[in-house]
Amino acid sequence: MSSSSFTPVILITNDDGIASPGIRNLIEAVRDLGKIVVVAPDSPQSGMGHAVSINKPLRLDRVNIFDDIDIEAWQSTGTPVDCVKLAHDVVLHHKPDLCLSGINHGSNASINVIYSGTMSAAMEAAIEGIPSAGLSLLDFNLEADFTVARSVARTITQQMLSRRLPDNFLLNVNIPKVNDLAFKGIKICRQADAKWAENFEERQDPRGKNYYWMTGKFINRDKGEDTDIHALKNGYASVVPVSFDFTDEQLLGWLSAKWKDL
Amino acid sequence: MSSSSFTPVILITNDDGIASPGIRNLIEAVRDLGKIVVVAPDSPQSGMGHAVSINKPLRLDRVNIFDDIDIEAWQSTGTPVDCVKLAHDVVLHHKPDLCLSGINHGSNASINVIYSGTMSAAMEAAIEGIPSAGLSLLDFNLEADFTVARSVARTITQQMLSRRLPDNFLLNVNIPKVNDLAFKGIKICRQADAKWAENFEERQDPRGKNYYWMTGKFINRDKGEDTDIHALKNGYASVVPVSFDFTDEQLLGWLSAKWKDL
Repeated sequence: MSSSSFTPVILITNDDGIASPGIRNLIEAVRDLGKIVVVAPDSPQSGMGHAVSINKPLRLDRVNIFDDIDIEAWQSTGTPVDCVKLAHDVVLHHKPDLCLSGINHGSNASINVIYSGTMSAAMEAAIEGIPSAGLSLLDFNLEADFTVARSVARTITQQMLSRRLPDNFLLNVNIPKVNDLAFKGIKICRQADAKWAENFEERQDPRGKNYYWMTGKFINRDKGEDTDIHALKNGYASVVPVSFDFTDEQLLGWLSAKWKDL
Repeated sequence: MSSSSFTPVILITNDDGIASPGIRNLIEAVRDLGKIVVVAPDSPQSGMGHAVSINKPLRLDRVNIFDDIDIEAWQSTGTPVDCVKLAHDVVLHHKPDLCLSGINHGSNASINVIYSGTMSAAMEAAIEGIPSAGLSLLDFNLEADFTVARSVARTITQQMLSRRLPDNFLLNVNIPKVNDLAFKGIKICRQADAKWAENFEERQDPRGKNYYWMTGKFINRDKGEDTDIHALKNGYASVVPVSFDFTDEQLLGWLSAKWKDL
């Protein structure tokens, strides 16, 4: 990718929907680094995980995201994963050189990687052999300040374009809610061993029948200083390399020894 | 768990919905091994991956699955992952001893683990510290023969109950579409490096506007004889231990060496 005439195609998607500030900020942060093509959900898809639409047909429509910047953009009725599949097969008819997903409004650090539509879109692209990164800012506010997040997105993208990457290249990038001055830099990390403890709030509808709202508390059991949660708490952006070979090697060893006579 | 007076609580869920033959067969296969509690979606949720319902309230209703067998069963309007969360927090108010998800109609071997609601439910339980297994039969037919699948489900459940298991215990169990005589046994495997190649079929609605149906072809690039796909092709049920720490250790090493000056 060192040839000066080479213009990489960068696919951009997200799970907050094409109208979210996060995706606009991501596009603006990297648009001079390649040819940008956007395929994103037409509405918010948070918490959709790796959902795909196998039982419903999908719409795909050309849209304008910016008044003043000409970017090829498409919105789809599908999930984030559907968008990546559509981008590859219907819009581009070839693999983009890079896929960026985000910038998500809210953390996808630690165990959130599993529930995240942002990361699922990036994972889908990585499965297809496209080097990918999901980016998330730890700020749910629609008016969030994306200054640091944009700078991190740009650095990561430049790094990904600057040299040949290993196969199966997938990053989970999270950016702390800090301003420019408090930001410490970017750290390579492992996924913290944390989880959500759910509670359901029981309510009654006007007919007296119960229904339940999910609420939850994030619990970090992991004190390691090499984790994404630790980096974020200390003002760093976290970069966790993510695998989509889910085989648990340690448990594989245990099973091979203890369950050999099934 | 060797005390004769101990009756394990076994949570059963799935993603095909509470009315599917697969979940009935699973319940029948293991119901004498513990106290069964069923919390499952009220309708099919295939392809939902690890989706959770954060923006809509959930219903949860007591139902009878069998005319002749008394099993505590609940149906929910949520996803498979929601069902596990509801089971823990609203139905049982404590952790079950085991969670079984399935028996799914169709394969969740190899990369399908990522898209699978069946496996997401099992993974959610495992994250909560409950030893779990997702079970899938390689037969989409509603009239599928579950004889072998039931026997495998029973063996796996007995194994899981027979001794102390390591932490983070999660299995992806797939059962080939073979009859009793052709069935070769159960194999511990790793996840094959395979993927889906998507195609979208473009159609026009009566107004002349395009829409797209997803179709796909499963492509196995992995020739290893220790993979789940290889086991299934040769008449074995595959058991893959699944991790929910997605950190890619190999890529972590590469990044730590090459990207240290970010």
